[in-house]
Amino acid sequence: MEYQEGEEERRRQSDGIDIESEGMGGGGEVSTMQGRKVIEGRTSSFWEYERGGDHGGYGGGGESTNHIHLLKEPLLETRSGVNTSSQTAIVGANVSPIESLDYEIIENELFKQDWRSRTKVEIFQYVFLKWTLALLIGLCTGLVGFFNNLAVENIAGFKLLLTSKLLLKHRYFLAFAAFAGCNLVLAICAAVLCAFFAPAAAGSGIPEVKAYLNGVDAHSILAPSTLFVKIFGSIFGVAAGFVVGKEGPMVHTGACIANLLGQGGSRKYHLTWKWLRYFKNDRDRRDLITCGAAAGVAAAFRAPVGGVLFALEEAASWWRNALLWRTFFTTAVVAVVLRALMVFCGSGKCGLFGKGGLIMFDVSSAIPAYNTPDILAVILIGVLGGIFGSLYNYLVDKVLRTYSIINERGPGFKILLVISISLLTSCCSYGLPWFAKCSPCPTGIAEDCPAAGLAGIYRSFQCGPEQYNDLASLFLNTNDDAIRNLFSSKNTHEFHLSSLLIFFAAVYCLGIITYGIAVPSGLFIPVILAGASYGRLVGRLVELVLGASSGLSVGLFSLLGAASFLGGTMRMTVSLCVILLELTNDLLMLPLMMLVLLISKTVADSFNAGVYDQIVKMKGLPFLEAHSEPYMRQLVAGDVCSGPLISFSGFEKVGNILHALKFTRHNGFPVIDEPPIADAPELCGLVLRSHLLVLLKGKNFSKHSVSTGLEILKRFHAFDFAKPGLGKGLKVEDLEITEEEMEMYVDLHPITNVSPYIVVETMSLAKAALLFRELGLRHLCVVPKKPGRPPIVGILTRHDFMHEHVLGLYPHLIVAHKWPGK
Amino acid sequence: MEYQEGEEERRRQSDGIDIESEGMGGGGEVSTMQGRKVIEGRTSSFWEYERGGDHGGYGGGGESTNHIHLLKEPLLETRSGVNTSSQTAIVGANVSPIESLDYEIIENELFKQDWRSRTKVEIFQYVFLKWTLALLIGLCTGLVGFFNNLAVENIAGFKLLLTSKLLLKHRYFLAFAAFAGCNLVLAICAAVLCAFFAPAAAGSGIPEVKAYLNGVDAHSILAPSTLFVKIFGSIFGVAAGFVVGKEGPMVHTGACIANLLGQGGSRKYHLTWKWLRYFKNDRDRRDLITCGAAAGVAAAFRAPVGGVLFALEEAASWWRNALLWRTFFTTAVVAVVLRALMVFCGSGKCGLFGKGGLIMFDVSSAIPAYNTPDILAVILIGVLGGIFGSLYNYLVDKVLRTYSIINERGPGFKILLVISISLLTSCCSYGLPWFAKCSPCPTGIAEDCPAAGLAGIYRSFQCGPEQYNDLASLFLNTNDDAIRNLFSSKNTHEFHLSSLLIFFAAVYCLGIITYGIAVPSGLFIPVILAGASYGRLVGRLVELVLGASSGLSVGLFSLLGAASFLGGTMRMTVSLCVILLELTNDLLMLPLMMLVLLISKTVADSFNAGVYDQIVKMKGLPFLEAHSEPYMRQLVAGDVCSGPLISFSGFEKVGNILHALKFTRHNGFPVIDEPPIADAPELCGLVLRSHLLVLLKGKNFSKHSVSTGLEILKRFHAFDFAKPGLGKGLKVEDLEITEEEMEMYVDLHPITNVSPYIVVETMSLAKAALLFRELGLRHLCVVPKKPGRPPIVGILTRHDFMHEHVLGLYPHLIVAHKWPGK
Repeated sequence: MEYQEGEEERRRQSDGIDIESEGMGGGGEVSTMQGRKVIEGRTSSFWEYERGGDHGGYGGGGESTNHIHLLKEPLLETRSGVNTSSQTAIVGANVSPIESLDYEIIENELFKQDWRSRTKVEIFQYVFLKWTLALLIGLCTGLVGFFNNLAVENIAGFKLLLTSKLLLKHRYFLAFAAFAGCNLVLAICAAVLCAFFAPAAAGSGIPEVKAYLNGVDAHSILAPSTLFVKIFGSIFGVAAGFVVGKEGPMVHTGACIANLLGQGGSRKYHLTWKWLRYFKNDRDRRDLITCGAAAGVAAAFRAPVGGVLFALEEAASWWRNALLWRTFFTTAVVAVVLRALMVFCGSGKCGLFGKGGLIMFDVSSAIPAYNTPDILAVILIGVLGGIFGSLYNYLVDKVLRTYSIINERGPGFKILLVISISLLTSCCSYGLPWFAKCSPCPTGIAEDCPAAGLAGIYRSFQCGPEQYNDLASLFLNTNDDAIRNLFSSKNTHEFHLSSLLIFFAAVYCLGIITYGIAVPSGLFIPVILAGASYGRLVGRLVELVLGASSGLSVGLFSLLGAASFLGGTMRMTVSLCVILLELTNDLLMLPLMMLVLLISKTVADSFNAGVYDQIVKMKGLPFLEAHSEPYMRQLVAGDVCSGPLISFSGFEKVGNILHALKFTRHNGFPVIDEPPIADAPELCGLVLRSHLLVLLKGKNFSKHSVSTGLEILKRFHAFDFAKPGLGKGLKVEDLEITEEEMEMYVDLHPITNVSPYIVVETMSLAKAALLFRELGLRHLCVVPKKPGRPPIVGILTRHDFMHEHVLGLYPHLIVAHKWPGK
Repeated sequence: MEYQEGEEERRRQSDGIDIESEGMGGGGEVSTMQGRKVIEGRTSSFWEYERGGDHGGYGGGGESTNHIHLLKEPLLETRSGVNTSSQTAIVGANVSPIESLDYEIIENELFKQDWRSRTKVEIFQYVFLKWTLALLIGLCTGLVGFFNNLAVENIAGFKLLLTSKLLLKHRYFLAFAAFAGCNLVLAICAAVLCAFFAPAAAGSGIPEVKAYLNGVDAHSILAPSTLFVKIFGSIFGVAAGFVVGKEGPMVHTGACIANLLGQGGSRKYHLTWKWLRYFKNDRDRRDLITCGAAAGVAAAFRAPVGGVLFALEEAASWWRNALLWRTFFTTAVVAVVLRALMVFCGSGKCGLFGKGGLIMFDVSSAIPAYNTPDILAVILIGVLGGIFGSLYNYLVDKVLRTYSIINERGPGFKILLVISISLLTSCCSYGLPWFAKCSPCPTGIAEDCPAAGLAGIYRSFQCGPEQYNDLASLFLNTNDDAIRNLFSSKNTHEFHLSSLLIFFAAVYCLGIITYGIAVPSGLFIPVILAGASYGRLVGRLVELVLGASSGLSVGLFSLLGAASFLGGTMRMTVSLCVILLELTNDLLMLPLMMLVLLISKTVADSFNAGVYDQIVKMKGLPFLEAHSEPYMRQLVAGDVCSGPLISFSGFEKVGNILHALKFTRHNGFPVIDEPPIADAPELCGLVLRSHLLVLLKGKNFSKHSVSTGLEILKRFHAFDFAKPGLGKGLKVEDLEITEEEMEMYVDLHPITNVSPYIVVETMSLAKAALLFRELGLRHLCVVPKKPGRPPIVGILTRHDFMHEHVLGLYPHLIVAHKWPGK
C-alpha cells in the first residue's frame, strides 16, 4: 500500500493558482469537502507512512511493506450529503448513507471466466427473466395502483357520505367533527406508518427515484418497508383530505416493486429467489427501476405512453432504445390490468368506486375552436403558470427547510406536524364553503346535482334541495372529482369567480405547506388543482370581456391552466403533454397545450430549477447533471482529485488491505504492479471494496507474494462478487482475520478490473465529467501526462464533479460566467 | 513522422490467435477490410521508410527525419462502404464518400483561447440563435409540409377528376390513357429530377438521416440540391400514383432544411450568414438535424408529439433532455403553422385541398368495445403483422439489391425503371377495379357516394349512378383517401372481402417493387395501406364468424392492422403508438394498439432487422449499434487497431505532414513529443486532418523546430478551424507549398487536442465500443498497458468496430454465440 505525495504540490504549480491565499469558502463540512487545504496537515498529523523504494515522490518498492498506521478521520468517498455551507437544513441527509452506483463493466479475471463459460441456456434464462420481470412489474404496479384508487375512493367516499348525511340534517358541528375526525384519524395512521416504519416513504419519492436512476442509492429508499408504507400511507394520506396526490407515491411504489422483484426478494423477510442472481448488478437494477417508475405513472394516470415518456424525460439519466421497448411493454401490461379491473368494477362490485374508464378526466365533448383573443389569453395563462410555478417551487423549498428542522426532532414532532396540517386542511375544506352562496342547479347538470344530498358530484352543503354550493363541490370532494368539476365544460357558470379565487388561494397555500410532512404526498394533483382553478378563472374573465361567444370553453381553459402550472413547477414538456392528453382525451388541444407548456417552462426556468431538482439538491443527493458548468472548462481533471491516493500492489499484504478498508471509506483502490513483477510501476487496474471484502472472507492467502490467481478463480464464481443491495453486503467488521493472517499475502489480480476508464490529467474537468456521466461511472482513473511518473495520479469520483466540492477548492471560479448552452 | 512496426506481431502474440492459419473470410474488398493480413505485405511492397532513431521497434529520434516516400494504396479511415464480401450490390456506396462525424470536444490551445475570450454577448447570441434556428426549422418544415400536401392534393385531384369525367362518359380507354399518361409524366418529372440533379434524394431518406445522426455523413445527403429534389420529386412521385408516401421524404426534407439553416446557408449558391459560425461543428449540427427530422414527421403526419418521439426512438443515436425540449418547441411551431394554414384553407381558397383538420384519419366516432374473441383476433393481427412485416423487409432488401444493379448503369436506366414501374402501377390501379362488382350506395354513406361521378370519396368507375365500385374507391383515390376509406367504420360492408384481398396483394407487391426506384418514396403510407386492408379483412372475417354483434368495428380492426404492419416493418413502438394516436384521435384504442405493436415487433424481430436498419446496412453506411456484439468481449482494443500508425512530432517538417495528408486518408494523427522536448516520448495529443490543412494554408513555418505557438494563436482564431460541411473544406490539392517550405517546420502544439479519450490496449473491444459510441467519437487512442513502450499503440475509428472489419480479422469469432441481452 502506498501513499502518493507531491501530487498536491504539482497541481498547484501546474495551475498557477495559490490555494492557500484564496481561502476556503465556507466551513462546517468534514472530509474531502475542504479537500486540498487539509491534506497537507493531515499528511503529517494523521498519517504515518514509510517509504520502501527510492522513486522520488512515489513510495513502494518491489515488495511493498508500507501501510497506514493511523488514519483517524476517514476520507469519505461516499459522503453523507454534499451541500454548500449555506445550506444547513438538509432533509434526512444526516441520517442516511448514500452510495454511488457503478454502471461500469468490471472486467476482471472472474468476469472473463464467467463470460466464457456462460451457456446458451443461461443467456436464454436471462432474457426470459428480463421480460418476465417487466411483466411482473407491470402486473404488480397495475394491481397496486388500482387497489390504491379503490381504497381511496371507498374510504374518502364513506367519509364524505357521512358528512353529507349530517349536513343534510343541518347538524353542522357534528358534520365538521365527523369530517375533521375522519381526516385526523387517517392522517395519524399515515404519519405513524411514515414516522416509525419508513421515514424514507415520506414525500413524493420521485426525487429519490430520479437520484437513484442518476446513480445515487440512498439508504432504504427502495426497501420493502418503504414500499409497504408508501402504499398504505398514500391511501390514508389521500383519503385524509390532504392536498396531496397519489401519483408521486405511485412512481416510488413502482420503483420499489421493481427493486424488490429484481433483488430476488428481500433477504430480511426470507423472500429470495436464487435464479434472480443475474440481476444483482447496478445496470440491470437500473433498467428494472426505470420500468417500475414508468409503470407507476402509467398506473396513477392510466396513461401508459405518458408513463414511458415520464420515465424517459424526468426519471431516467441513461436511456437506450432497448429499454424504451421494455418500458413500453411494462406500461402496456399496466394498461391491460387496469382496463380488466375497471371492466370488472363497472358492474358495481367495487363499492363506491366509480365507473371511470381509462380516461380519468374526459373533456373530449368540448370542441376546441379558438381565435386570436383566446390565444392571447392562453399565452397569459402560460406566463401566469410560469410565475406561479416558480414561486411555488421557491415556497416549497423554504417550507421543506423549515419542516426538516421540526421533523429532525423525532417521530413525535413529525406526527404533531401532520396533525396540525390535517386540522388546518379540515378547517379550510369545511370552513371556506360557508363564504359561497347557494346556486340553483341548472337544468343541464341535473343528474350531477345532489338529489338527496348524497349522490352527484355537486354538493348541497348548507343549501336547500335543487341547490348546490360551488365551493363545497370543490372542497368536499375527492381531489379527482374536484378536477373533473373544474375541467367540465357542461355549464360555464357552475363556479363563481370568487369561489374559484378562494379555491385557488387555498389549494395553492395548502399544497405548499402540505408537501414535506411525514406522509407520502404527490405533487401532481395539488398542482393540477391549483392550475385548473386559475385556468378556469382566466376563462371566465375572458368570457366576461369578450362575451359568451368566445371560442374556448372554460373547461378547456381550466385544462390549459393545469398544463401551465405543471409546466411551471415540474418543467417537463413532452411527457406532461402526453400525460395530459391521455388524461383528457382531447387531441385537438395539443397545439395549445404545447404552447402553454413551452411558455410556462421558459418563464419559470428563468427563475429557478424544477421542483424535483430542487428537492434532490436539498436532500443532499449528489446528482450528476447532464451538462457541465462553464467553470469546469477552466480546470483539469488533475485539479480536483481529492485525498491521498491509497493503492495496493498486485500481491498485497492482508493487513494493509484490512487497514485501508477499515480506516478509509474509499470504494475503489488502484492496483499497481511493481518490480520485480513488472519492469516499472504499472497500473494493473482497480479493485472494489466489495470485491476485496469477499476475497478476504474467502481467505485465499499465501505466505509469500506469489500468484494464487488460478486457485481463486477455481474457488470463486463471479456471482460471489455480485453486488448486494445497499447495506446488505459484507462489512469490514464481518471479517475475522487472525494476527498471523495479517502478515500473509493475497493475490489481487483475479479481482482487478484491468481496464478501468482512464483520462489524462490534463483533460478539462468538463470533458472528464462528460465521460463520467455518459458512461455512468463510479471511479475514473486519472493518469499522468508524462511518462516516468507514478502510473496513476488519482481517482475521480462522483463528488469530485459536484459544484460544492469544486467551488470549495477553487472559490474564485464562483464568479465565472455561466454558459447557458446546455 | 513515424511508422510503428512490431505492433502487429505483438498483437498476435498477445492473443494467441494464429491469424495466418485461420484464413481470411471473403475477398473483393479493398483497404482495411482485409486488414491485418495485407499489412505485412504492404509494409515491404508499398511502404518505404527509414529509421531515424534507435528505439527498438519505435522509429524516430529527437528530430524526426523519417517520412513516407511512397504509399500507393491509401489506408482509408473513411471508407466508401463497409460491407461483407457476400454483399456485393451496394446502393450508391461506390460513388459517395462517407465521412465520420466527431462529437468530441477538441481541446487544443485555440479552443481554450476562444473559450476564455468568449463574452456574455456571444453566449447570449449563441443561445438566441439556437432557439431562432429551431423556430425557423419548424416554420420552414411546416410550410414545406403544407405546400407538399397542397400540391399533391391538387395535382392528383386534377388527374383523378379528369379520369372520372372520362369514365362517366364510358370512354374507358381514353380514361386509362389520361390516367396512365398523367402518372407517367409526373413519374418522369420526378425521375429526371432524381437521376440528374440529386441521386441522393431517391428513396425514403430516413436511413440516411438516421446514419447522419449516428455520425456518418454521406456525400450531398443534406445538400440544397437534395432538398430541392426531395420536395418536388416527392410531390410528383406521390401525385403520380405510386404506392409511396410523403412521410419519409418529409423527414429528409426537415433534416435538409435544418442543415441548410445551420450551415449558414449554402456557399455554392452564395447564401451564407456569418453569424451562424457558432454552428459550424458536428455537435450543433446534429442537434439541428434532430430537430429537423422531428419537424418532418410532425409536418407529414400533423403529429407534433409523434415527431419528437420518432426523432428520439428511430432517428437519433444521442439524446439529451435539453434537446427534447428544443425538438418539442420545433414541432410545436410546425403544429401552429399547419393549423393556421388549414384554417386559411378551410374557407376553400386552396383548390382541391380538403377541409382536413389536424387529425388526418379521424376514427374517434367508433367506440371501441371489445371482448375475448376480439382480443384473440387482435393477437392474430399482431402475429400476421409481424410475419408480413419481416417478409416485406426481406423482399424490399432483395428488390433494392436488384434495382441497384440497374440504377448503377446510369440515369437513363433509372428513368426507364421508373417508367416501367409507373406503367405497372397504372395498369394495376386501373385494371384491377374491373374485377370488382358494383355495389349500391348504402343509405348511411350517401354524402360520400359519387352523385355525378366527381365528388365523394367513393368512385363509381364503370358503375351506374347511386352505385360504387369498392376497389376503384381504393385504387383510384389518393393514398390518404384510401386510408380514410379503410379506417372508416360508417358501413361495415363497404368493401367486399375479395376486394380487400386484391387490394392488399396489389399494394403489398407494388410497395415492395416501388421502393428503390429513383423517386423520393416514403414507406409509411404503403405499409399503412397494406396493413389497413388486411386488418379490415380480419375484421370482416371475425364478423362473419361471430356475427355482427362483435365488439370492435371493422374500421378499428383496420387501424390495428396498420399498426401491426408498421410495427412489423419499422420496429418502433412508442413513437408509432403516438403517431397513430395523433393520426386517428382514438385514445381508447391505446391498450390494443400497444398490444398489437408489441406482438408484431416481437414476431418480426425474430426474423430480421427493421427496414431502416436493413437499408442503412445495405447502403454500406457504417452504423454504430448501441449494444456491442458478444464476440467483442473476446477481443481487446489493441486487437483491432488497423494499419500502420502515422504520427507527428510536436514540431514537424511541413513535407512530412503534406506527404501524410496526400498519401493517407487518415483523419487524425497522434502528436508525440520526443526528446529533447520531452524527457521521454510522450503522447502530446491528436491533430485532425482538417486542422492541419488550415494550419499549412496559413504558412506559419519556421526554419527550425522551435515553438511558434503564440504567433499561431495570434494569427488564427478558433473559427478558422470550424468544421465546414462535407466536401467543402480545404483539400490537400488546395495547398501550395514550395520545395523550400517543405523542409521547414511547423509547430503543431496549438492545434493538438491535448486530451483525446484514451483506453488501455487490454480493454475489451466491447467496453471500448461503449465509450466510443456513447461519446460519439471519431478517434479513440489506444495506449499501451506497460510503460516504456511507445506512448500510443493505435487509433480506433468507427470502422474498427464494424462487424465486417472485426470478423474479417478474426473469422473464427463468427460462430461465437450471440448474446441477446441488449
